[in-house]
Amino acid sequence: MSDPAETPIAYDRIRAVEWNNGAVKLIDQRKLPASYEHLRLESVADVARAITDMVVRGAPAIGVTAAYGVVLAARSRYREDPAAWKTAIEQDLQQLAAARPTAVNLRWAVDRMRGLLDGVSGDPAPALLQEARRIHAEDIAANHRMGELGSALIEPGSGVLTHCNTGALATGGYGTALGVVRAGVAGGRIKSVYADETRPWLQGARLTAWELVEDGIPVTLIADGAAAHLMRQGRVQWVIVGSDRIAANGDVANKIGTYAVAVAARHHGVKFMVVAPTSTVDLETASGADVPIENRDADEVLGCGARRIAPEGAGAWNPAFDITPAALIDAIVTEKGVVSTPDRDKIAAMMAA
Amino acid sequence: MSDPAETPIAYDRIRAVEWNNGAVKLIDQRKLPASYEHLRLESVADVARAITDMVVRGAPAIGVTAAYGVVLAARSRYREDPAAWKTAIEQDLQQLAAARPTAVNLRWAVDRMRGLLDGVSGDPAPALLQEARRIHAEDIAANHRMGELGSALIEPGSGVLTHCNTGALATGGYGTALGVVRAGVAGGRIKSVYADETRPWLQGARLTAWELVEDGIPVTLIADGAAAHLMRQGRVQWVIVGSDRIAANGDVANKIGTYAVAVAARHHGVKFMVVAPTSTVDLETASGADVPIENRDADEVLGCGARRIAPEGAGAWNPAFDITPAALIDAIVTEKGVVSTPDRDKIAAMMAA
Repeated sequence: MSDPAETPIAYDRIRAVEWNNGAVKLIDQRKLPASYEHLRLESVADVARAITDMVVRGAPAIGVTAAYGVVLAARSRYREDPAAWKTAIEQDLQQLAAARPTAVNLRWAVDRMRGLLDGVSGDPAPALLQEARRIHAEDIAANHRMGELGSALIEPGSGVLTHCNTGALATGGYGTALGVVRAGVAGGRIKSVYADETRPWLQGARLTAWELVEDGIPVTLIADGAAAHLMRQGRVQWVIVGSDRIAANGDVANKIGTYAVAVAARHHGVKFMVVAPTSTVDLETASGADVPIENRDADEVLGCGARRIAPEGAGAWNPAFDITPAALIDAIVTEKGVVSTPDRDKIAAMMAA
Repeated sequence: MSDPAETPIAYDRIRAVEWNNGAVKLIDQRKLPASYEHLRLESVADVARAITDMVVRGAPAIGVTAAYGVVLAARSRYREDPAAWKTAIEQDLQQLAAARPTAVNLRWAVDRMRGLLDGVSGDPAPALLQEARRIHAEDIAANHRMGELGSALIEPGSGVLTHCNTGALATGGYGTALGVVRAGVAGGRIKSVYADETRPWLQGARLTAWELVEDGIPVTLIADGAAAHLMRQGRVQWVIVGSDRIAANGDVANKIGTYAVAVAARHHGVKFMVVAPTSTVDLETASGADVPIENRDADEVLGCGARRIAPEGAGAWNPAFDITPAALIDAIVTEKGVVSTPDRDKIAAMMAA
């Protein structure tokens, strides 16, 4: 956007992903905040590549995107061969599910869409599009519910710290952790919002700050390394983050740096809240040790955007996620409710409810 | 440098600061590693500005630079007025000492140079230059000594993590924490070196990586937020950092992010070593709470180098340093010896030795 101040985009109009005239329309998040552009994708291969390349990112958002991607796949496969499309589409579903390894919402959405295939006859696109839209709408509704539940845990007048981007850009709309921030600010419980810049991809500096500025919510960015110093000064009472996968025992996979913040929060008596829809909970993953952690290209650390910062010859280690053990988490908030001091039994009970 | 591989600069030839033909010659550290350039400064005002602007940084290096700056000041003031220069120079000394607030080495070096003024007669430059060169040489010698002492604490085959830049670029030469890394690698005790990139100024990615590549020491950069995840995987046994000021009780001021690493190290049973010459110890500062923490421009966090990354309207908090309490430190290494589990009495005893 050339001038966000003159052309505000309220959070309820930010849609990272939309179905638009027979195609998947994505905000190109690689270019924010310098440029606000959309991509229009008409093939499932393009959708899978957009997920891998982080045109769209954020566990719930890539789940919704994949659901719409299945519609594109079904339309194309059905046109190619109305008799055999249900077999042929399987490779597309696998390609989508494998576009990124850590966020389980991707596999969850593909599996849910796959569940409809047997029942459809004739052109599958209308029924599948209806289901994808339902997944999308449910995600937005879940976020608003989590916003209420999570913000209710926060004492009025609190400062909060968030990590990565968990807002409208990372979800179907509104946001998970950032939904709690929005609700908490609107309800007067949160008086100051700090955001980790979240190297190497800078989701905090580029995306979270952009969303909050658009909403008129004051935000203070910090270098990731400054979070512990911030806590020591008593400036924040809660850390609020999202998740890419919650294991059956309550361990949480989330953006690299989350675990460091959780360790620092516990050291300082700062509360730690994870906000994610139940589509992020994977009962088949026993613990955090079983979550596949995506290692991304070293160039993300060796540079800043397109600019190289490190010398030739330097190496880099670039895990995109880390694991925060359940023992460091005070509350997991889903659309089904709040799980305090999570463990295997409480997670199972919440999912069965 | 256009091609470091073809034009290696061994650590023992890297000099962040030199006295050269009547002027102070500095490597412009703002431009590394993309460009290896020197600035030649002939006035004390230029030297003070170079320190403020971080042409030269690192507590010992700015101490040495300030010492040479006093020579420039004395030369100029003596030429202006051979009778009254000892009074007139005081404003220069205060300007130098105030160029940055946190690193006590700056004040220490200025005070040591000031101590000579009463005793000189006639042209003060030769005697002051001799003292500045002595400060410089002592710093290099201290670093080599600390390299021996610190590396001896490390079990053979260890992985280490360092933060910021504490090498030849941050000191008179060789380095403090990075001197321990150099000695530990040379002696076979350190098998792998990880470096925090150290946002926002990226001293790790730009300077530490450059020095280690020049030395042929393999280095793996990580985003600052990845340090706790690295420790959880058991990849490092020691964190080794420098300091800008060590308080009388053993609390350590160092680059922002150091404290977060110290908290994570303690959580994982990783040892934490601070390496700094006794010029960094300030017995007049009772504890870390009394150290002035420099807040630098928000633009350092809102951008990456000259490139803006955050949207207009976002704020940032940019403390350049944080405080690591003595209780989180396993060893402070100075040229006088190793202080294990530092406290007020041990620091006092070490300084009196």
